[in-house]
Amino acid sequence: MGNIFSDRITDVPRSFIREILKVAIDESIISFAGGLPNRDLFPLKEIKAATNTVLDTAGKDVLQYSSSEGYGELREWIAKRYKTKGLTISPDNILITTGSQQGLDLLGKTVLNEKDAVVIEEPGYLGAIQAFSVYRATFFPIPVTPDGIDTETLAHTLAHHTIKLFYCVPNFQNPSGISYSTKNREAVAGILKGKETILVEDDPYGELRFIGEPKPSFYELIPENTVLLGSFSKIVVPSFRIGWIVAGPEMMEKLIIAKQASDLHTNYFGQRIILQYLQDNDIDEHIATIRQAYGRQRYAMVTAIKECFPPETTYTEPEGGMFLWVTLPKGLSAMEVFKEAIKQKVAFVPGDPFYVNKKDVNTLRLNYSSVDEETIRIGIKRLGNVLKTMPA
Amino acid sequence: MGNIFSDRITDVPRSFIREILKVAIDESIISFAGGLPNRDLFPLKEIKAATNTVLDTAGKDVLQYSSSEGYGELREWIAKRYKTKGLTISPDNILITTGSQQGLDLLGKTVLNEKDAVVIEEPGYLGAIQAFSVYRATFFPIPVTPDGIDTETLAHTLAHHTIKLFYCVPNFQNPSGISYSTKNREAVAGILKGKETILVEDDPYGELRFIGEPKPSFYELIPENTVLLGSFSKIVVPSFRIGWIVAGPEMMEKLIIAKQASDLHTNYFGQRIILQYLQDNDIDEHIATIRQAYGRQRYAMVTAIKECFPPETTYTEPEGGMFLWVTLPKGLSAMEVFKEAIKQKVAFVPGDPFYVNKKDVNTLRLNYSSVDEETIRIGIKRLGNVLKTMPA
Repeated sequence: MGNIFSDRITDVPRSFIREILKVAIDESIISFAGGLPNRDLFPLKEIKAATNTVLDTAGKDVLQYSSSEGYGELREWIAKRYKTKGLTISPDNILITTGSQQGLDLLGKTVLNEKDAVVIEEPGYLGAIQAFSVYRATFFPIPVTPDGIDTETLAHTLAHHTIKLFYCVPNFQNPSGISYSTKNREAVAGILKGKETILVEDDPYGELRFIGEPKPSFYELIPENTVLLGSFSKIVVPSFRIGWIVAGPEMMEKLIIAKQASDLHTNYFGQRIILQYLQDNDIDEHIATIRQAYGRQRYAMVTAIKECFPPETTYTEPEGGMFLWVTLPKGLSAMEVFKEAIKQKVAFVPGDPFYVNKKDVNTLRLNYSSVDEETIRIGIKRLGNVLKTMPA
Repeated sequence: MGNIFSDRITDVPRSFIREILKVAIDESIISFAGGLPNRDLFPLKEIKAATNTVLDTAGKDVLQYSSSEGYGELREWIAKRYKTKGLTISPDNILITTGSQQGLDLLGKTVLNEKDAVVIEEPGYLGAIQAFSVYRATFFPIPVTPDGIDTETLAHTLAHHTIKLFYCVPNFQNPSGISYSTKNREAVAGILKGKETILVEDDPYGELRFIGEPKPSFYELIPENTVLLGSFSKIVVPSFRIGWIVAGPEMMEKLIIAKQASDLHTNYFGQRIILQYLQDNDIDEHIATIRQAYGRQRYAMVTAIKECFPPETTYTEPEGGMFLWVTLPKGLSAMEVFKEAIKQKVAFVPGDPFYVNKKDVNTLRLNYSSVDEETIRIGIKRLGNVLKTMPA
């Protein structure tokens, strides 16, 4: 059956992270490898109440097939939420997706022909690399800097190639934790203005800022170029797989066709529960709790890194989100460090899967959202000890 | 933004049915157009109990991210269920999908290169036509007969073309309601044996047989060629979007990569609730209730058709499932009849969207599962009156 498979599927990198999570399932391992929200903060009691309210009030309707666009009232809620952030978006321009990962798949379906060019951040989000690889994109990785994307390289790339998509995570990027400054965003907007390139603004972490002020969304700066992705996974719960995509009418029409062909519609029961939860609770208060916890956890991690890692190590200091990014002394392979770290009962993601064309890199991703402060200190100490024993 | 879209998305037919459902939203219209299960039979009380049990016993774990393969215990339940039907399938060969529609999308991703050949039934399931169109398949439609697929044409097509997929719904086909006889299945198995063609056996309705005996699954006859799709949508509830795909190890590995890239995993909360429901209730008893109801509704529809439709009209008499198929007197356009029928407050799906290359056909699909017997009688009478006034 070897030659029955499509060319595309051989292009898609299997999730290295998923493989790592299997290794890290050993409970004695402290794992900074995952990308999980802190389960202790899940609003279990409130979700239970919302679920029962939905079943009692809407009854059998919530068990039936539903519309491809998603639940109208939930899309209205999302539109109103954007309004509070200064963005005017019609519910008609919002499509509910099965997690924001599906938003990426639908965009690939809708936009990409084989070999079409996609600009991606370097290091970049693995889920986006996977989703666009399925549609056989040609990737143009552009480095991220502490302030955002390298605009000089971006301008050069857009001047010399026809770029269909520019995929970015401007707030607390996965994997690096960096954020685009306002100046950087304005520069990017200036470069894209008038071009046919679609900027995919993936914003799962935007609400999770614990330092500094929110920055303008690309949807504000260049709405005509921007498709915006959002998700309830990091601010309510991930298991329901409910995200959304914001796009103009012409794009939306195509996205809905792609959505029908992909899974007809997103889990309707979950959409109803999420809306009920949002209506019955103070989401800002809940998000504040998450922000404060992640802020403390990030502080604990940065403090421990300062203490325990070799002084030549550098790292990002995120203003929000769930990840930070470590650059090891030159010549050190994160993959080799990983193998040793697992023996010492601590896990992380070596940088390799976040690059489309680099291997044996000296960078790695650490997640601080899913581990408590005390465990962070123990885990970082273990990792520091590993680093000190590695030949540079 | 006109030339930003992919070639593929222009190939995908927008769901005509969806458009029709919009027309038929007027409550005074009796609609045989949908493909909905009967909502009166949804086990609301039991789902509510299962939901609360899951939240009380599993707690916050059911709100976290989960595995791409799907919930292990649910996959075990499905494997055991197949065992009771005489099929030996390992849970490792079962992948949970976001409805069986996603199974089709994942197969397209995994198998189809542009222009690859796909055999599809004529008339065929629109969702499959949509899913495979996304991957730019070349379709070879092969007529269905009252006994199954036209095996002569199938053999000829497979002898003269390299066919990657043969997509079929052997039990109570959508849209025609016909089933493949045992003899027809054996003939199909004989034709495919030793070939590289994958037979996609889509079986959402298999449990809903109200007349006659179950027929052997293709997974029994030619397991090495068969990929089997199943769903909880028709036997428990559709809104959760939980289906599955059964495939061999080599194919499964690719499907999991495609699944990761598509939506990471299927709604985990819903998977847990479905399993709890299945563990706490007698699913056979529930399915028997559905079968009896649909059997009565189908009987009411056939009886009313006999009475009310012009004598030159022919129709299928399904042994199970949710649909039957009407062939109007030659020269009559189902689309023209539809326009008139809507005025007379009755809706159905004209045959057109079920063909990949025919228009203005004289066939149509009627759904009997979602409408009660009395309403069926009134609706069919209305439709009969429309037909009698149409110029042949």
